[in-house]
Amino acid sequence: MNFKVGIIGAGPSGLAMLRAFESEQKKGNKIPEIKCYEKQDNWGGMWNYTWRTGVGKYGEPLHGSMYKYLWSNGPKECLEFSDYTFSEHFGQSISSYPPREVLFDYIEGRIKQSNARKYITFNTVARWVDYNETTKQFRVVFDDLVNNKTFEEFFDYLVVGTGHFSTPNMPYFDGIDDFSGAVMHAHDFRGADQFVDKDILLIGSSYSAEDIGVQCYKHGSKSVTISYRTNPIGPNWPEGIKEVPLVTHFDGDKAFFKDGSSGVFDAVIFCTGYQHKFPFLPDNLRLKTKNCLYPDQLYKGVVFNELPQLMFLGMQDQYYTFNMFDAQAWYARDYVLGRIALPEKAEREKDIEKWVAEETKTETPFDHIDFQTSYIRELIAQTDYPGFNLDQVAAMFKQWIKDKETNVLTYRDKVYTSVMDQCKAEIHHTPWMKELDDSLERYLEEEVEVK
Amino acid sequence: MNFKVGIIGAGPSGLAMLRAFESEQKKGNKIPEIKCYEKQDNWGGMWNYTWRTGVGKYGEPLHGSMYKYLWSNGPKECLEFSDYTFSEHFGQSISSYPPREVLFDYIEGRIKQSNARKYITFNTVARWVDYNETTKQFRVVFDDLVNNKTFEEFFDYLVVGTGHFSTPNMPYFDGIDDFSGAVMHAHDFRGADQFVDKDILLIGSSYSAEDIGVQCYKHGSKSVTISYRTNPIGPNWPEGIKEVPLVTHFDGDKAFFKDGSSGVFDAVIFCTGYQHKFPFLPDNLRLKTKNCLYPDQLYKGVVFNELPQLMFLGMQDQYYTFNMFDAQAWYARDYVLGRIALPEKAEREKDIEKWVAEETKTETPFDHIDFQTSYIRELIAQTDYPGFNLDQVAAMFKQWIKDKETNVLTYRDKVYTSVMDQCKAEIHHTPWMKELDDSLERYLEEEVEVK
Repeated sequence: MNFKVGIIGAGPSGLAMLRAFESEQKKGNKIPEIKCYEKQDNWGGMWNYTWRTGVGKYGEPLHGSMYKYLWSNGPKECLEFSDYTFSEHFGQSISSYPPREVLFDYIEGRIKQSNARKYITFNTVARWVDYNETTKQFRVVFDDLVNNKTFEEFFDYLVVGTGHFSTPNMPYFDGIDDFSGAVMHAHDFRGADQFVDKDILLIGSSYSAEDIGVQCYKHGSKSVTISYRTNPIGPNWPEGIKEVPLVTHFDGDKAFFKDGSSGVFDAVIFCTGYQHKFPFLPDNLRLKTKNCLYPDQLYKGVVFNELPQLMFLGMQDQYYTFNMFDAQAWYARDYVLGRIALPEKAEREKDIEKWVAEETKTETPFDHIDFQTSYIRELIAQTDYPGFNLDQVAAMFKQWIKDKETNVLTYRDKVYTSVMDQCKAEIHHTPWMKELDDSLERYLEEEVEVK
Repeated sequence: MNFKVGIIGAGPSGLAMLRAFESEQKKGNKIPEIKCYEKQDNWGGMWNYTWRTGVGKYGEPLHGSMYKYLWSNGPKECLEFSDYTFSEHFGQSISSYPPREVLFDYIEGRIKQSNARKYITFNTVARWVDYNETTKQFRVVFDDLVNNKTFEEFFDYLVVGTGHFSTPNMPYFDGIDDFSGAVMHAHDFRGADQFVDKDILLIGSSYSAEDIGVQCYKHGSKSVTISYRTNPIGPNWPEGIKEVPLVTHFDGDKAFFKDGSSGVFDAVIFCTGYQHKFPFLPDNLRLKTKNCLYPDQLYKGVVFNELPQLMFLGMQDQYYTFNMFDAQAWYARDYVLGRIALPEKAEREKDIEKWVAEETKTETPFDHIDFQTSYIRELIAQTDYPGFNLDQVAAMFKQWIKDKETNVLTYRDKVYTSVMDQCKAEIHHTPWMKELDDSLERYLEEEVEVK
């Protein structure tokens, strides 16, 4: 096969792409030339924790939004790879909500079984892409950050797996310029330690606000106030966490809210979401989307309709994660290998419109789960990615939402059963609220003393 | 004149370039087509304060390292424009060390007299530059951040004035990953308020460490500890500020130093300098330099020797600032206009080597001042930028160093006399240590109550 595939990013999406090609190769089939470039110094994407904030060692905007003490906020049984189970990796049953280091270990475990690392160049950022209409190739300029050197590569296909939880969306509020305490976006939150005994204000009402709020409460913040724009998150908050309407303005160390209330705070954390940003792509090749379930430029949620040689993985709002990236990567692989023939552009457009129209009809989180389940079902049907019981995963997602609504402090103590190998999760040795040590070592201990 | 000049950045350097062309135009002379692009939403570069940290509204690495309560740390008489004095701008005599807003007003005052703004496109970042050997033109891809649109422009000359105090240099120290308090680079420091009653550790021994340390002390930090690598800053610190040798490692909230001492801290601020970074340039057009007085790729400190159509302004380590950028911009202008003929490359190389060798011989801050004075003297001699008494400015710089050594808390109460118009600065209405309000309004009040 004399063509070349470029992969940008070696996080869960880029690694899924490498794994997809590698599984093909293991069957004795030929694969094209592949190169993967990663801005960070290791693989794992968002799961590769860094203490840095803002920009990285070489001045690039930081990829990571990961923080200390982050535990999975959904059951691991919903994100399990269908070709590499948690039981296979750990050789034992573990709980349903592992911490970051454990999940990183799992992601790495699968990819380490392959020769994927040899395809990846680290500390190298995609700086600029041109598409040549004549040669039908992409020229990608990369920047080798360690050596301060730029170089070009040419590709027939380009797969973008750079994520969309890296570029903070940070609206302005009157008076925030002079707020006297700490101001940061969730992207730069690195753990609750810094906020022990502090009164903190979180602005936002999605996963970041919920999880950072609960983390800070757990690790000893004096009070946690969550300010929502439209709807409160709404679980039964314990004393010490409360929700208030949107901030109207700040004055000194004081924040004022729409309901006329106010409060004095030591820190404000903007949990106001992320922007999809692709600075290395010319705008006619850019995915321009908000966080939604079906970006309207992507056929099958993967193939850039204007130029199908360009693909994006993992750009959806996510219930499903690792196994969705896999399903997408396997689809992208089979398209690249010529096994999946794409219909004409207008046909593809119609298909996109059908899905987008379906998304418009969804209202509740349950609807969203069902939508994404159908999407993945369709993808998996077209490749040899090992199928799994999607209805059961959807049911677990729904149960997870109920668990959180019942008690946001204890939902991580629940256990689920793998649909991949029917392994039932263990109840963890320590209730989540009492477990302040999130290390892999501590997590895997069989008998522990509560510290 | 049928050629085109691109200017990247509308800070003090880019504005100097615009002003240089404009002063030529005012004399009735023709100038080439000019376009200037600025990443931020306003001009002023580093003097354009933002409350944001890390990345900006559109996810670009932030330019600004400016903080609340920043007052000039050198006498304004050393940075005065020779074609627009402080007296002319304010219509009165002011003190020698004005705060940020006052300096911004001064910079803006000069440029507002011209039609420079019409040449500038804001919120637009230079994304990628290619040089075409055949057409001898630069293709610059710009990214319109507001509209998420990219476009190309072609230039015969390119002037880079993007500064070099924007990309943090942040070394790793063992244990910093788990430091429990706040960790930031000086680039993200936005004012001392957040550190009132806190024990703070600054790592570094240059201007940032000195000034942030003094600011935090002034605004009420409980203690300020400054950790130096090689030499302490060394003034007679007041009780509450001390210097210690370099950090060896961190453990929890504790820092350990080379002399065996240790301390517990609420926050660590890395005052460890900046990197020169030009992500939009291919590496053969990149200035690769540390913070020095004579980057070895720049003829006359301005012209990129490998490709003289490319110029850099303000890339030196700086004693002189605004008037040095002016001297460079006037030089660049006259070269572009064909008034200054450059010698051959090898000759230019020799000239660079001569200056670099001179710099190597410098040892003390006084030597550095004399070096930069000579450099500027040479530049000014070649253009019509209004000459001024450089020896007297050099003497003021030296006195300023002595003043700081005598008392780092009171040196800003000293006054100097302008070499441009002999205006003697006023003693400010409030001693600097007692002045907690840095607004322009307060600064210009004639009679004040000490708050």
